[in-house]
Amino acid sequence: MSEIDEFLNEAAELVNAELDWLIPSEGRGPQSLRDAMRWSLFAGGKRLRPALVLAIGRNFGVEDRRLLGTASAIEMIHTYSLIHDDLPSMDDDDLRRGRQTCHVKYGESTAILAGDALQALAFQTIAESRELGPDLKIELISGLGKAAASMVVGQQLDLEAERRQITHQELEAIHRNKTGALIEFAMDAAGMIAGCSDHDRSLLNQFGEKIGLLFQIVDDLLDVTATTETLGKTAGKDASSGKATYPSVIGLAPSKKLANDVADQAIDILDRMSVANQLIRSIPPYLLDRSY
Amino acid sequence: MSEIDEFLNEAAELVNAELDWLIPSEGRGPQSLRDAMRWSLFAGGKRLRPALVLAIGRNFGVEDRRLLGTASAIEMIHTYSLIHDDLPSMDDDDLRRGRQTCHVKYGESTAILAGDALQALAFQTIAESRELGPDLKIELISGLGKAAASMVVGQQLDLEAERRQITHQELEAIHRNKTGALIEFAMDAAGMIAGCSDHDRSLLNQFGEKIGLLFQIVDDLLDVTATTETLGKTAGKDASSGKATYPSVIGLAPSKKLANDVADQAIDILDRMSVANQLIRSIPPYLLDRSY
Repeated sequence: MSEIDEFLNEAAELVNAELDWLIPSEGRGPQSLRDAMRWSLFAGGKRLRPALVLAIGRNFGVEDRRLLGTASAIEMIHTYSLIHDDLPSMDDDDLRRGRQTCHVKYGESTAILAGDALQALAFQTIAESRELGPDLKIELISGLGKAAASMVVGQQLDLEAERRQITHQELEAIHRNKTGALIEFAMDAAGMIAGCSDHDRSLLNQFGEKIGLLFQIVDDLLDVTATTETLGKTAGKDASSGKATYPSVIGLAPSKKLANDVADQAIDILDRMSVANQLIRSIPPYLLDRSY
Repeated sequence: MSEIDEFLNEAAELVNAELDWLIPSEGRGPQSLRDAMRWSLFAGGKRLRPALVLAIGRNFGVEDRRLLGTASAIEMIHTYSLIHDDLPSMDDDDLRRGRQTCHVKYGESTAILAGDALQALAFQTIAESRELGPDLKIELISGLGKAAASMVVGQQLDLEAERRQITHQELEAIHRNKTGALIEFAMDAAGMIAGCSDHDRSLLNQFGEKIGLLFQIVDDLLDVTATTETLGKTAGKDASSGKATYPSVIGLAPSKKLANDVADQAIDILDRMSVANQLIRSIPPYLLDRSY
């Protein structure tokens, strides 16, 4: 197993344990709501965003215990956004990560509320972290709030773009908000916790932007080229629902070329960072070559 | 006009101006989403929760400018919860404050996203307040997160209790979470910002609990006794939808008596507070006698 695959497995285990501790299988409140939150939270997600927090934080010498709360909060926001995006009035998806989406399994109202609760708990998790000081927590909460608001903007733009021809620029705005904002924040949060210099923080922002873009182009390509089985969600869904994607807007071959170029640009940015270990250097090629 | 009516008008104007500044009618992101947020945010709500923050804060000598950010954040959480509670899969309400609910006016997906964005902005608003120090902001965000999570729990309990006979105790648990938690937090937040003694903080918590309960009993009574026109939302909706209410669980006359008793208990708590001005003393009778 390659270094990055090993790291991703380790990061997923650490984050799963932290999330299981933050939202245990039993506790106060209605069990249905708790089960619905955990159904989506523990659906076998790759934990890419939390792994990015850990990778960047470790690169700058931060201990995992100072990163895991924020990493988990980011995953809660990501999960809530998936639950709401899958709803019948939004993307109307029945399948996610190879199993029923939250509203199919638990009903629509419970799914909406599970998402709402996850968003509240994300902010609360950072506020109540014992590993971080108050100034840092405020900076993280402000950044997470901005990212969460951007994701809503991105989803609205995406819904409004359905069944309509859009430009490359409009597509970028959708993805930058819908997917990019939280991936960028994951990097930025690690930089905040590490107390990085302004120089490194600025490069982390640029790196985050490239990684968010790369992730989305590959996601769009996989929807065209992969099968439902390997993808764990309905393949070809973007095209059949008239969603704007890189292949549909700029074509398949140019999309592949763009993904390669963006991965190269991401590496170039790392070359200018004060420290960039082998692990974070392997992130762009990993995202470029992923098959699900 | 009585002192409390004058105060409530003044508080509503201050909070409306703050909310209009925080979420202006034009800005970045899709206009539809912004319009939907403002449609529900400026629907003529009484601004009761923000007014409670101002009343309690002023009672302890805090300047308005230190209270208005938190008061607005609380109103954003309240508004988001109304938008989501009104959705077809939840309470399926077409009318709120005398006009179309958010999803009727803007469509279901936009309404869900408008609620999601308001929740994110509520936390961000406190985090970015220039009037409060970091320790205080963290305490407020943690408390707001707990209240927001409780509201979701209350709504889930409420939905699960529909068309089923429930006990007085179960009814209290529903209301304490669904409505009480945020009203209690409004009081508690003002106490935090004022830097109240533990003695006063404890009494504020007890007062908040009574006020939340009083508010809900009267709300349930109004659904039975008021008309749709004065109420601005569909009257008799609770009974027709099989909702658990105080009149349906303990009867109409006992509900009225309970409301009176709770108002008296609230006043008794104020008598033990280090300072309780005439304005906050008029809150329990005001809530008891309100007609909409």
